[in-house]
Amino acid sequence: MNRSVTGPQGFLAAGYASGVKVSGKPDLGLLVCPTGATAAAVFTTNKIVSAAVQINREHMARRKTYAVVVNSGNANACTGKLGLANARKMCATTARYLGVEPDEVLVASTGIIGHQLPMDRVTQGIADAASLLSGLQTGGLAFARAIMTTDTKLKQAYRELDLARARVRLAGTVKGAGMIGPNLATTLLFITTDAAISKPLLGRALKEAIGDSLNRLTVDGHQSTNDTAILLASGLAGNARITGPSTSYRRFVKALVDLCTDLVRQMALDAEGATRMFKVIIKGAATKADATRAARAIADYPLFKCAVHGGDPNWGRIICAVGSSGADLNPDRLSCKLDDLYVFRHGAPTNFDPKEASRIVSQQEHTITVNLGVGRCEDFYYGCDLSAEYVRINADYHT
Amino acid sequence: MNRSVTGPQGFLAAGYASGVKVSGKPDLGLLVCPTGATAAAVFTTNKIVSAAVQINREHMARRKTYAVVVNSGNANACTGKLGLANARKMCATTARYLGVEPDEVLVASTGIIGHQLPMDRVTQGIADAASLLSGLQTGGLAFARAIMTTDTKLKQAYRELDLARARVRLAGTVKGAGMIGPNLATTLLFITTDAAISKPLLGRALKEAIGDSLNRLTVDGHQSTNDTAILLASGLAGNARITGPSTSYRRFVKALVDLCTDLVRQMALDAEGATRMFKVIIKGAATKADATRAARAIADYPLFKCAVHGGDPNWGRIICAVGSSGADLNPDRLSCKLDDLYVFRHGAPTNFDPKEASRIVSQQEHTITVNLGVGRCEDFYYGCDLSAEYVRINADYHT
Repeated sequence: MNRSVTGPQGFLAAGYASGVKVSGKPDLGLLVCPTGATAAAVFTTNKIVSAAVQINREHMARRKTYAVVVNSGNANACTGKLGLANARKMCATTARYLGVEPDEVLVASTGIIGHQLPMDRVTQGIADAASLLSGLQTGGLAFARAIMTTDTKLKQAYRELDLARARVRLAGTVKGAGMIGPNLATTLLFITTDAAISKPLLGRALKEAIGDSLNRLTVDGHQSTNDTAILLASGLAGNARITGPSTSYRRFVKALVDLCTDLVRQMALDAEGATRMFKVIIKGAATKADATRAARAIADYPLFKCAVHGGDPNWGRIICAVGSSGADLNPDRLSCKLDDLYVFRHGAPTNFDPKEASRIVSQQEHTITVNLGVGRCEDFYYGCDLSAEYVRINADYHT
Repeated sequence: MNRSVTGPQGFLAAGYASGVKVSGKPDLGLLVCPTGATAAAVFTTNKIVSAAVQINREHMARRKTYAVVVNSGNANACTGKLGLANARKMCATTARYLGVEPDEVLVASTGIIGHQLPMDRVTQGIADAASLLSGLQTGGLAFARAIMTTDTKLKQAYRELDLARARVRLAGTVKGAGMIGPNLATTLLFITTDAAISKPLLGRALKEAIGDSLNRLTVDGHQSTNDTAILLASGLAGNARITGPSTSYRRFVKALVDLCTDLVRQMALDAEGATRMFKVIIKGAATKADATRAARAIADYPLFKCAVHGGDPNWGRIICAVGSSGADLNPDRLSCKLDDLYVFRHGAPTNFDPKEASRIVSQQEHTITVNLGVGRCEDFYYGCDLSAEYVRINADYHT
């Protein structure tokens, strides 16, 4: 069974090594919907954005999108007018091979900032990739491989659901291993679905899904200039077209959240140097914003991330991060659980079994639940450990 | 010449190994002003505070302070009512040896959170330290040594100035190597001076000085439950007592800022695993808050800190951090200098010499200046590199 981005009906994909990466690894991907897809997209909120993000904001105005062209190895960011012209040229070249308009193509780039794209290689690469387009799993896998940078594992996820007797498929692939703050970070995410759904509802579904998945993951707390999530819907599944917030819409969003959360877990575990991931749940907060702030403070706290790396149930660092987050809390009612084990309750450490606590923290994934003891709001965050390997990767990566 | 905390006239100090630290290293310090000092203090803004911080907030109401008792190796935080009673007992025991009232003594603790102090050792330690009190340099050095935890170097600074023909001395010692966010973090700072100055003016001077020094240093972006800065003024220098915002006051504050900045540099270079430090200056910001936010975003950014560790002039990470900080900026007018070398100007990288840029970033200290191109406000931050050693120290430190 094809669980790649060519799994949903109506999609072709390809990947090719064009030579943008000096390593000779695949660096150019094409994802195509020959019948024209309804598209939704979310971009970085960084105030410095790549050429691709600027171009896509224009191109999203079109009713139909036929393709996405992606290069890895060069971010085409901080590259001025020439960078913008090059991003436009990537769309125009792709459009020419497919017989569509340039603004019916979206573009994404990831890699180093501040260098111009070697356009001769990119243009030739698009031609070569176009000749390799395939609706089989091989095409989807080649595309997923072409978007990787420091990722050590290919990441994809697949979901199916029945909407009024029509089988609807969703598939996604994502790249992102470092520079992962909430609001996407250095993430390129591409999702395909054969659901029939209107453009406004598709946009809303993508925002909802990302809000509960990618926007709740932090690796190093920053977002890049290039972060892009694109969702293409071919509409070929035969379901009654979703045009309002119906039960079908809710079920579609649920499957989409589930798919994105699957990808988030893969990203956290493949984060640069990461060996473990965790989920932080904040309960009993006065406001949702306080819950978010406290959850993120823990997930981003280098000392806590180091403790997780060492398998140390260091509740002191959790309490310290919560206290310094600015979130309202009641020191006498504060509690903290590692999975189901209370390590802190009523403002003081419990008599917990340190071996059991170490076992929990040493798992590939564990959950930290903190109750602030002042209200009823909650939120969560995903994070990963901080290892010496993270430093090595990022100190040795030279510009 | 005695440049320790017993350098200014009117101070005695001692340090002793009481056995709180299992390593057998010094862990109990006494700093005494037998004639009674005017005191100023600044505490952590963490919502969870140690017993010592709670007690000090009460004791600062007294007109005179005769001593500060400090233990390292145990933070006496998250220790409930017994912890509070123990902190009170530390003050009372010290007061008994000096013949003063318990609330004329301040207390500070640093070390592991959530464990009760071994009070038999602490009480005996105070007695032993009291018998060792000395106004010589040996006393000041012993005190400075007793407050250290993961610090690898003893940190002290000394300044002198003449106020209307009277020679005024200031000396400070600080501990803090990890968990250093702005607003003090796991910092214990003790400053002595023989200046004659009123209590309100002394408090204002300390706040001003810390605002421009310790509050502008970030190592891992968090503050602990115990952060404390205490400034004791014996008034024995013979200067005309400072009671208003006079020229003498301004000159006193300037010397205090200078002293604190000296200590901040020592802290940054001795931060856990750090090998280099840097100063980030933001100019051209629309508001001071924007300048602060952008400066801190760079100084706290793990990827940038890793790049500094690797000696890599990675301006892309600087631009990325600034763009994602939320500060208002003009992408077309943005510029970035490493020391005096422009690496980014008018929104694009310059043709800088990469060898010269690497040389700058590989210094023990360098300055990053970013102009946001939208206003006239500025601010700065100090930071240090992030090394694999930081992770090792904090992953191996078990609770």
